[in-house]
Amino acid sequence: MRALPGPASLSAALLLMLSAGFHVAALKTPHLLGRHRLARSFSQQRAVFYKTLYFDQQIDHFGFLENGTFKQRFLLNDKHWHQKNNPILFYTGNEGDITWFCNNTGFMWDVAEELGAMLIFAEHRYYGESLPFGDESYSNASYLNYLTSEQALADFARLIENLKESISGAQNSPVIAIGGSYGGMLSAWLRMKYPSVVIGALAASAPIWQFTDMVPCGDFYKIVTQDFANSGINCSKNIRRSWMAVNNVSSTDEGLQWLYKEFGLCSPLKEEDVGGFKGWLQETWVNLAMVDYPYEANFLQPLPRWPIKVVCSHLQFDTGVSDKQLLHGIAQAVKVYYNYTGTAVCLNISQTATGSLGIRGWFYQACTEMVMPMCTDGIQDMFEPQVWNFQAFSDECYEIFGVRPREHWAGTVYGGKNIGSHSNIIFSNGGLDPWMSGGVTKNFSDSLVAIMIPDGAHHLDLRYNNQYDPQTVIRARALEVQYFKNWIKHSTIT
Amino acid sequence: MRALPGPASLSAALLLMLSAGFHVAALKTPHLLGRHRLARSFSQQRAVFYKTLYFDQQIDHFGFLENGTFKQRFLLNDKHWHQKNNPILFYTGNEGDITWFCNNTGFMWDVAEELGAMLIFAEHRYYGESLPFGDESYSNASYLNYLTSEQALADFARLIENLKESISGAQNSPVIAIGGSYGGMLSAWLRMKYPSVVIGALAASAPIWQFTDMVPCGDFYKIVTQDFANSGINCSKNIRRSWMAVNNVSSTDEGLQWLYKEFGLCSPLKEEDVGGFKGWLQETWVNLAMVDYPYEANFLQPLPRWPIKVVCSHLQFDTGVSDKQLLHGIAQAVKVYYNYTGTAVCLNISQTATGSLGIRGWFYQACTEMVMPMCTDGIQDMFEPQVWNFQAFSDECYEIFGVRPREHWAGTVYGGKNIGSHSNIIFSNGGLDPWMSGGVTKNFSDSLVAIMIPDGAHHLDLRYNNQYDPQTVIRARALEVQYFKNWIKHSTIT
Repeated sequence: MRALPGPASLSAALLLMLSAGFHVAALKTPHLLGRHRLARSFSQQRAVFYKTLYFDQQIDHFGFLENGTFKQRFLLNDKHWHQKNNPILFYTGNEGDITWFCNNTGFMWDVAEELGAMLIFAEHRYYGESLPFGDESYSNASYLNYLTSEQALADFARLIENLKESISGAQNSPVIAIGGSYGGMLSAWLRMKYPSVVIGALAASAPIWQFTDMVPCGDFYKIVTQDFANSGINCSKNIRRSWMAVNNVSSTDEGLQWLYKEFGLCSPLKEEDVGGFKGWLQETWVNLAMVDYPYEANFLQPLPRWPIKVVCSHLQFDTGVSDKQLLHGIAQAVKVYYNYTGTAVCLNISQTATGSLGIRGWFYQACTEMVMPMCTDGIQDMFEPQVWNFQAFSDECYEIFGVRPREHWAGTVYGGKNIGSHSNIIFSNGGLDPWMSGGVTKNFSDSLVAIMIPDGAHHLDLRYNNQYDPQTVIRARALEVQYFKNWIKHSTIT
Repeated sequence: MRALPGPASLSAALLLMLSAGFHVAALKTPHLLGRHRLARSFSQQRAVFYKTLYFDQQIDHFGFLENGTFKQRFLLNDKHWHQKNNPILFYTGNEGDITWFCNNTGFMWDVAEELGAMLIFAEHRYYGESLPFGDESYSNASYLNYLTSEQALADFARLIENLKESISGAQNSPVIAIGGSYGGMLSAWLRMKYPSVVIGALAASAPIWQFTDMVPCGDFYKIVTQDFANSGINCSKNIRRSWMAVNNVSSTDEGLQWLYKEFGLCSPLKEEDVGGFKGWLQETWVNLAMVDYPYEANFLQPLPRWPIKVVCSHLQFDTGVSDKQLLHGIAQAVKVYYNYTGTAVCLNISQTATGSLGIRGWFYQACTEMVMPMCTDGIQDMFEPQVWNFQAFSDECYEIFGVRPREHWAGTVYGGKNIGSHSNIIFSNGGLDPWMSGGVTKNFSDSLVAIMIPDGAHHLDLRYNNQYDPQTVIRARALEVQYFKNWIKHSTIT
């Protein structure tokens, strides 16, 4: 999931995305998803086995004029599902190829045997192979009209009902929704909106409150900043100083040339690229905050363990250094992210990871329902100040997609902060994860609970067990499984 | 709310409705709503005072391409709402003009003072004045596409949020949804889907289970039959025998002429009208079952107290009578319904009450989401046998509206019989009401409860207090208010 950029950079970003290649040079935004190509090529990936299946879904669940269907892809593993009425763990796919989520949700694979669970990974419409209008799905506003979270939830509900009817012995199987990030929001919402199909949900790092008037718009970038501040002396301070240093150095042709060489960029830096260059740096820091895992991993990029510590080891200067000395450090730091494997020939400021269709879809969602205000002030965070301006954002969405975001709709449809009447949802949050800013971090009741993982980044709990896992994530996973068992036990009594 | 007719008569019914005048001659169906013209002219109506207001609603809450709005009408009375944070009772309008529901929901007016409550009556889109595309709203399938219960619920949710923001002192007012029949279903669903906007719901005579595979399709007509069987010796038996008598007598021209005169019909009966004539009789019996109230009332028609008893007083013959003797009794019985006031010049088999736009809208809803299977066997009920045939029904819907019903969608989206995780919903049911067949008649938990009113017809509890009210409805209303107070008390604590 990407945070929304400020309006100034949004237009450029989206327009770029919509052109061939979907470069995202100007995006001052974190991004999370749609990185499956890299992820799959990285050495630490474990092999998982599943059947790939398809289910005919209504294109429009909420209207009857459009009566067409499309093939929704889902992945199924029943290796440990031996007994009638054993549980089903159902991953509510988010904005990307479902195989990538399948490979990056090791927790489900790790607990399947203990729970005797079937695993299902359901792809979100408009991503991966689940395209309602095939290759044309993104070609116009009319085809894009069915890309909403409500339609996706209805897909999941219909699919679950169908699976329970069609799989012998599954008719009374309790189903638990699991998801991370936007997928975690969907898990929580699936339980809220369709409690008849899932007995509970694990919503990992799910910022269901990252909407207008629910949380301060600056919290996200504050957490990013804290991660750097806590990972090395002067680290966040030097990043905060770096923006002005970039401005200074890039004000001359010599300086632009120096930056190009120092950062090992793929193309020479021009004056008009400076904004994009800073946006690319900002997105890099945000991505690092999301994937600051305690072991070598490849989620957005192949990275060392505790990557921000490694990054910060290059940024320990006192205030006395020159702009170029400072930016030399920044360049070294950035290369931790882009060239940990040592195989990068050059750095491309149009990319912070490989692109995918997911980006376009997510921006459409951000331009309609998923309006997540973000802002920076340069004081409580280490970024250049940028206010949140809904009207400007709306205008740019309209220009690009022909639709306008509805600022308050997500709050209405999903209940905003008033969710206390629901049950059986776990909200897990990583203390290092900027998305915790919009997460549910306190218990509402015995069955609507928050689990904190202070030294966890973005949904660390959904990853495979690892020898370097901190105790907090080990405990979180154990607690999650305990809730699952409790839900399952009670579901089979009734 | 109308029960669905069998497929044979549906097509004729719908085609007729869609022609000018919306005659519904061939409908073998109960109908409930859209009778406001008559209702308002009847003497027992009490005067109620309200402001008529309008709120701009999105035409499409679930897609962003159609960004138009329409004016949703709602009625507001705040006579007893004196204190900040006092409660709001919110009527979730069903398929008809909201003023009619406002006038026929005396319960809310009766309890407003005790609760210090504001009263809101919100009109359902596509009915009354709340027409998304004005006079064109019903002109084509594309305009009708936004007539769904989900859109209506979203309207209610948005309206409530807006009212709480815009009315000074209402920001923390607890809101309770109240509705009867389809409006009761909407109340229950509003609490299920938007628990952040309503703290609880009273769903009176709300057949939320009258969908495919949830209840036997014959239960509805069985209850109708029981009402007649219990209201007079031989009453249901003679009605059961009457269909064959109609067939026999109508097989000659003389017999058709006799029926025309005996029933005082407005136009001569032709051979091809006989099916419609029987459908009209059937609908008359069903309507009587719905409005078998213990006092003189005018809901669908002006009627005496316990109207079925009066009807049955004309149908006490033993088995020995001739067809014409039997049908003479039927004619007398029918006139209890159509001519209690003695002012009817003739009986029109195209009408069982005055028509309104509501009928067309309800049939569109029946042809999309609100698929409510109905059947008769002539043994356990007093009607001619008719099976339920979904495919034939679907084909006819397609022919008429260009859309196909989705048989299982209502079950998916509203949870079917698996609603136990919800809270704060009262399902009240009348033991005389055929719609009890699809109602929730058992408690799920302390806060998801059923209230039975054995001698109540269709949502008797929502009507004004009356000196002839049976004890069971007096107790039911008291209990309902007790639940309201309890919900309100707990809502103000949190």
